[in-house]
Amino acid sequence: MDLPALVADLRARKVPAIARAISLVENARPGFEELLSGLHPTLGRARRIGITGPPGAGKSTLTEQLVRAYRAQGLTVAVVAVDPTSPFTGGALLGDRIRMESVALDPGVYIRSMATRGSLGGLATTTREVCDVLDAAGFDRVLVETVGVGQSELDVARTADTTVLVLVPESGDGIQTLKSGVMEIGDLFVVNKADRPGADRLRHELEVTLAIRAGNAFRHVRAHHGRPVDAQAPLEADGKTPEVLATIAAKGDGVAELVAALDRHWEALVRGGALAGRRKERLRQRTREVVERAARQWIWQETGAEQVIGERLDDIADGRLSPYDVAAEVLEALKQGVRT
Amino acid sequence: MDLPALVADLRARKVPAIARAISLVENARPGFEELLSGLHPTLGRARRIGITGPPGAGKSTLTEQLVRAYRAQGLTVAVVAVDPTSPFTGGALLGDRIRMESVALDPGVYIRSMATRGSLGGLATTTREVCDVLDAAGFDRVLVETVGVGQSELDVARTADTTVLVLVPESGDGIQTLKSGVMEIGDLFVVNKADRPGADRLRHELEVTLAIRAGNAFRHVRAHHGRPVDAQAPLEADGKTPEVLATIAAKGDGVAELVAALDRHWEALVRGGALAGRRKERLRQRTREVVERAARQWIWQETGAEQVIGERLDDIADGRLSPYDVAAEVLEALKQGVRT
Repeated sequence: MDLPALVADLRARKVPAIARAISLVENARPGFEELLSGLHPTLGRARRIGITGPPGAGKSTLTEQLVRAYRAQGLTVAVVAVDPTSPFTGGALLGDRIRMESVALDPGVYIRSMATRGSLGGLATTTREVCDVLDAAGFDRVLVETVGVGQSELDVARTADTTVLVLVPESGDGIQTLKSGVMEIGDLFVVNKADRPGADRLRHELEVTLAIRAGNAFRHVRAHHGRPVDAQAPLEADGKTPEVLATIAAKGDGVAELVAALDRHWEALVRGGALAGRRKERLRQRTREVVERAARQWIWQETGAEQVIGERLDDIADGRLSPYDVAAEVLEALKQGVRT
Repeated sequence: MDLPALVADLRARKVPAIARAISLVENARPGFEELLSGLHPTLGRARRIGITGPPGAGKSTLTEQLVRAYRAQGLTVAVVAVDPTSPFTGGALLGDRIRMESVALDPGVYIRSMATRGSLGGLATTTREVCDVLDAAGFDRVLVETVGVGQSELDVARTADTTVLVLVPESGDGIQTLKSGVMEIGDLFVVNKADRPGADRLRHELEVTLAIRAGNAFRHVRAHHGRPVDAQAPLEADGKTPEVLATIAAKGDGVAELVAALDRHWEALVRGGALAGRRKERLRQRTREVVERAARQWIWQETGAEQVIGERLDDIADGRLSPYDVAAEVLEALKQGVRT
């Protein structure tokens, strides 16, 4: 593979090069780590925005509206859509995924669906690496849209600089049912389908809960009356009191306000210094993930671990040794340093 | 923790001991590997049956019917139900899970739901370990019911001695849409809701596909005419030509036939020697998983890897080093043997 040529074409935002680089990364094919390592110094230009929420919250529609709004500002946009697909039907498991038809043919837009089959390094790691490719390709905004069905999808959402949690009035019995940890990942909350019954109540509940969490009732009262929280306030710069917005994505209502709120959140992140800290923490996590992936490859491809297990397998099957005994033996050998 | 007492109570099938042992395993709390290692020599008595299929296929109802049928034979049954739950609603994401009310109070039945939050060793590994606990507790049958939404759930289904794939006429546009690898995990196929339109066609499609896969058209023709394939034939002993059954689980129709087919599959596995090979392969896989889990613990808790990443983090953030550079450095240190 001609890596320098690929990188040059990628930086020129040539679509075949983007597709090829993503495939390389998604399938962890030889050279993918060299590619990513080479791209690393130039990353950080794109603003990464995560959009997550339960099935049926209208995330795809909202994402499409965001793409159009950014395009209207002359910005280029990449979308990474992560939906679990059913092994039984081949289709999206939960989604009414609209293929973003109104923006799909725009050369300033790149849309990529990610398979959720367990990749070597895990879905969240691979998604982050795909976002790196898109960042390197010069897109101004990288939107990661994911249906929040489980821990791994929430981890995906957490890859962003700003994470938008999209809820709808019918999401469930208010926010009491949100699992612990879900509220914490939202930097911005959107109540979509805001013309439906219960939307105001959901919005109010969110504002109360967020205000209580921030320990600042006064701030809550202001937010509840519809004025955005002062972006210069230290609490907001920490992302501690996220804004709650109302949208009707299907009509485009509230999208301009969401774009403005995303800009405010970004500026607060930058000004408060939180962006650098946040990105650093994510690079720490990324490095840990790459270590784990590399360690797995080392253990199974370069050490005698596989062979040791094979030799002990009869004893394991007969009950003379347990899998835990043999794993301890293998690990002891690893600890002593396996010379290859 | 008094491990011998726990093991003794577990073997006596005392419910608090079962629950405690499963919690220990599910949360990977101190002592869980000693417990599992101690149980290992006595495992293998229970027949493990996996039941999987798309959302809405009626797996829970079918499982409940199987439990009742086995209880009627005087056998004890444990059920491990693995369903993804939504982080947004707290409820089952896809399921109309019936809580198996008709059997839940029977002391010969133990039902356990598994959380699908990523556990330390992964869902599939933990589920296998929970099945070990139930096997050690002396249950005659361990049913693992899981909705097949992704790779990890299919991995769960693969933990069993016999895996039943449950489909319904409305599962999708025939079996063309089944992802590669899905057909392969089924030892028995059930077309549930067999009174609905399209059931005969789905059954026929399954039989043709399975026969083609087995490269045996003659065998297919026989199966298609409703007679079960001869259990003594070598192909079936290999699990190469799975039976296709029709059920209406809600009415109990076809359940006795399913129980008989499960017995036939078991006997063919035992007689053909495939059971030992299959269980050995699973023990190999298990040992690999335990090695990976132990390696992760070693890397992050016993070596200086975390500290190295911390020291390099500024360089990573500034672009002087990439996560891949630092991961390579950490791995090199691991390979040299880290003395602690």
